[in-house]
Amino acid sequence: MKFTKMHGIGNDYVYVDCTKKDLAHTSEIAKYVSDRHFGIGSDGMILIKSSEKADFQMDMYNADGSRGEMCGNGIRCVAKYVYDHHLTDKTEISIDTLAGIKYLKLTVENGKVVKVRVNMGQPILAPDRIPVIAEKEPVVAEPIKVCGKEWKMTCVSMGNPHAVIFIDTPVKEFPLEEIGPHFENHARFPKRTNTEFVRVLDRQTLEMRVWERGSGETLACGTGTCATVVAGVLNGLCDRKAVVHLLGGDLEIEWNEDDNCVYMTGSATEVFEGEITLPEEMTE
Amino acid sequence: MKFTKMHGIGNDYVYVDCTKKDLAHTSEIAKYVSDRHFGIGSDGMILIKSSEKADFQMDMYNADGSRGEMCGNGIRCVAKYVYDHHLTDKTEISIDTLAGIKYLKLTVENGKVVKVRVNMGQPILAPDRIPVIAEKEPVVAEPIKVCGKEWKMTCVSMGNPHAVIFIDTPVKEFPLEEIGPHFENHARFPKRTNTEFVRVLDRQTLEMRVWERGSGETLACGTGTCATVVAGVLNGLCDRKAVVHLLGGDLEIEWNEDDNCVYMTGSATEVFEGEITLPEEMTE
Repeated sequence: MKFTKMHGIGNDYVYVDCTKKDLAHTSEIAKYVSDRHFGIGSDGMILIKSSEKADFQMDMYNADGSRGEMCGNGIRCVAKYVYDHHLTDKTEISIDTLAGIKYLKLTVENGKVVKVRVNMGQPILAPDRIPVIAEKEPVVAEPIKVCGKEWKMTCVSMGNPHAVIFIDTPVKEFPLEEIGPHFENHARFPKRTNTEFVRVLDRQTLEMRVWERGSGETLACGTGTCATVVAGVLNGLCDRKAVVHLLGGDLEIEWNEDDNCVYMTGSATEVFEGEITLPEEMTE
Repeated sequence: MKFTKMHGIGNDYVYVDCTKKDLAHTSEIAKYVSDRHFGIGSDGMILIKSSEKADFQMDMYNADGSRGEMCGNGIRCVAKYVYDHHLTDKTEISIDTLAGIKYLKLTVENGKVVKVRVNMGQPILAPDRIPVIAEKEPVVAEPIKVCGKEWKMTCVSMGNPHAVIFIDTPVKEFPLEEIGPHFENHARFPKRTNTEFVRVLDRQTLEMRVWERGSGETLACGTGTCATVVAGVLNGLCDRKAVVHLLGGDLEIEWNEDDNCVYMTGSATEVFEGEITLPEEMTE
């Protein structure tokens, strides 16, 4: 099986072009290739398919073989793949995902995509749709007691739940491993939550570390970065357009006033191309 | 840069054929490719070179870019690489390493190497050469107090120090993360130690988990597996020829009575071939 390893600010997947030939046993293959020691090593596998509804379809699997709906860092790499590998010559493309059709704008330099802007949709602020147990809507700077301390959370869903906490100290020093799991599993989040710890550097610059539901700390979380800027605006702490520094790199976020959509812009990087011989039971 | 990803029971390296063309900036490249998210992801990089002293030379780098002397799982993959890629048609080969010339015997099936036997040399039992602070030579079932409990350790060097501890319970259940570091940094090991926790299943079968000096738990440790069987023989617990079950797979060990050398036999697996574009500063 031919594949391309790509990452969006450190969020890395094995990409397989299925526009000409479909793949069977995808869940087993995703699990197999995601293992670093015995396979390729990745956060999962993303199949690029043709689509009747959009320009392409993104079929995403997590490292454990389960189906993923959408990934903001992954979809930028899909866009880079289809352009750089000449599957399209358009610089505005649509990609069908399990979370709906997404619209992307590509920045091309010397014939290669260097940056991609994704319309991540409108933020959801209704507590029961996030979901979070709260008294007011929107949930802005609402007190929550975690680890014996009172924090102020702002809750936003970008298709998945986020609790955003603004802190005054450098995020590098924050005890994320200790605090993160207690937010994740707090009784006020019926479907658990992703939690972002954010420091405002100035009105256009934030730094953030994320504790992802089910994954722990990750290098980057696209939806979490969108939620961070939405929360910053709701708290009057930042402008509608800001850069967020993450462990894996930077993302530019714009919460557009006209259409209420959040636009995320970031890099997409091809690391290497390879060919792997799959175990027989996965190729039958 | 073309490369091949291979593993010996889960101990995985990026292999590069340098027999025709040498590579510069090797330490930087090793560090770069070893990173899973932004590079290839591996335990390190092994360069295969021609040699004037032996059939081939193995030039090994750890994931942090530091030089490695020798790796029992890595050298089996070097043997598979040179035979499968037609750099030799010999099934008994010599490979020069920073720990001296090693001799290997290849088992070939359908034109491909499936198993490799490596002469790992003679065990070192003198306490000052292991090194370990001990009263008797050899150091067999000597008491040592760690984490408030008295253990019995047998110490063997296979070029690097090992403390082997026999336990009665399944190794799966052993609290390795808790106990391992306290052995590693115990005052009786002037250069720290690797520690093997071993359960004897029968005289020809052992199971083992290893805490590696500087790395923590790993899926497999070639020298540690050799030390395990030597320690088993010294304690009268196993035969000179035994199979050891490790997290990553099995190794067959023979401590030969005639030449006093330890022979290790195990698999070597090619996972995929790839081509990576290195950052400019590494290709100048």
